[in-house]
Amino acid sequence: MTTSIGLIGPGAMGLGITHALLRGGFRVLVRDINPERNRLASEAGAVVCEHAAAIAREAEIVITVVVSAAQTREVCFASNGLVETMAPGGVVLMCSTIAPEDTAAIAVDLAARGINMIDAPISGGPARAAAGTMSMMLAGGDGALEKCAAVLATMSDKRFVISPTPGDGSKMKLVNNLMAGINVAAGAEAFSLGIKAGLDPKKIYEVVMASSGQSWMVADRMKRIIEGDRSVTAAAAIITKDVGLALDMAQTLKFPLPIGGQAHQVFLSTLALGHALEDDNAVIRYYQALTGIPLP
Amino acid sequence: MTTSIGLIGPGAMGLGITHALLRGGFRVLVRDINPERNRLASEAGAVVCEHAAAIAREAEIVITVVVSAAQTREVCFASNGLVETMAPGGVVLMCSTIAPEDTAAIAVDLAARGINMIDAPISGGPARAAAGTMSMMLAGGDGALEKCAAVLATMSDKRFVISPTPGDGSKMKLVNNLMAGINVAAGAEAFSLGIKAGLDPKKIYEVVMASSGQSWMVADRMKRIIEGDRSVTAAAAIITKDVGLALDMAQTLKFPLPIGGQAHQVFLSTLALGHALEDDNAVIRYYQALTGIPLP
Repeated sequence: MTTSIGLIGPGAMGLGITHALLRGGFRVLVRDINPERNRLASEAGAVVCEHAAAIAREAEIVITVVVSAAQTREVCFASNGLVETMAPGGVVLMCSTIAPEDTAAIAVDLAARGINMIDAPISGGPARAAAGTMSMMLAGGDGALEKCAAVLATMSDKRFVISPTPGDGSKMKLVNNLMAGINVAAGAEAFSLGIKAGLDPKKIYEVVMASSGQSWMVADRMKRIIEGDRSVTAAAAIITKDVGLALDMAQTLKFPLPIGGQAHQVFLSTLALGHALEDDNAVIRYYQALTGIPLP
Repeated sequence: MTTSIGLIGPGAMGLGITHALLRGGFRVLVRDINPERNRLASEAGAVVCEHAAAIAREAEIVITVVVSAAQTREVCFASNGLVETMAPGGVVLMCSTIAPEDTAAIAVDLAARGINMIDAPISGGPARAAAGTMSMMLAGGDGALEKCAAVLATMSDKRFVISPTPGDGSKMKLVNNLMAGINVAAGAEAFSLGIKAGLDPKKIYEVVMASSGQSWMVADRMKRIIEGDRSVTAAAAIITKDVGLALDMAQTLKFPLPIGGQAHQVFLSTLALGHALEDDNAVIRYYQALTGIPLP
């Protein structure tokens, strides 16, 4: 019998996951607040449902890939939310990047209804989501992880079990994305300086990729800058949100992030200049706006 | 007939280069201001000379690997400096990381004596210097590069020709090291935050190495942090100097480096706490001093 899996939020990542699950032989029940996203998911072969409660009536495992903690709470606990219909022992596989304390609190509220949460941030971008080759950071109980084993294996080819405690996955994601955010801003800053100094950006790329300045973000994001390719892998608004969440988490812990804080200001400046929906490599446009450097 | 190559400054990198050249069949004439370094070079098989002029009398190619622009100038132009004896057409292979404008000015002054400079910053650390597998960024005229071809091939297995203009190699090195410096400070900041939040540093390393937070510096430097290995690859004082040189270069160009500037303050704080001669991963001790996080 075909297993039904719920998925709330078939956005860029969620639609990719939908494709991977369908290809993996699952029946996928979806819901988005945006009708266009429902249409795309339906075209892919998913069944569009009226609301989260309708999904949880049929699916023991529901993936949430919405934007914020508030949306996640709404999907779970609002009228027609998951908890209205989900059978005890069901699993919410929470793939959004939200604050660890929100993740932990939502997990506690779900547990009070007999529902398990796996805190399961994802990484890798829409193409890898669709290919089923994302990275996942997993924090949840053994029973829930076991129940989701086939789904997780279909979604991802790199899975890191962080701890049994929802919230720890979110912490790990924020630690990673803090570094990723700083690295891409640092890359933009250093490439811009080199261009201003008269160096060929292609040559900078070639040297840095073979030297101590290398980073995954520069390898991926600056490549498209030097090729003049303005396609969007992950929006500038998203990395700005993620670095902001890391700053919030640090503030709660009374932990200073001097470099992350400065990088966040640079991203906010990038958003202020109107680049929120461009790729996060648009952070280089901030340096361009200030200094007039030419870019390919 | 064996070719004689001069090398001024057999320090950590210079002694490594000396080993590589000797193994490559060159005769190596050295000089250091520190007698202990001369002794080590002599033990390795190099010929210790009295001063730079004595070296340049016998060697058409002289490598300089000293600490600063002032020392480079002294080696070239002071009493008993290279220019007193070097035959026209000789080459100074300048491997120090110094300000691009100093590099360019020294090249002009050497050219006035008929001597060519190759601006040739090196990267990779002492072990790769000794193995002849450093990276080199090369800015100099074709004739000089051709004359040094065998020497360069013996020193390095990754050579990037940046331009014919001395100064451009230094610019490229500073652009790379600006990124490297920010990346290691960002890594220390993010790892520290994760540790404060209760995550296992080994797990952070494992996740980040497979995710978008990856960088060469974190891969290399944080590995030794999580292993509790306090060996020194490159001193904290050196990366602090290099990021400072990038800030100087940017100031000359009226170019803002908000993230590099903040990273430099973090490195200066690390030096202020007494970690100048430790590995540059000691930047994590700054976060430890502020927050009391445990480190392996």
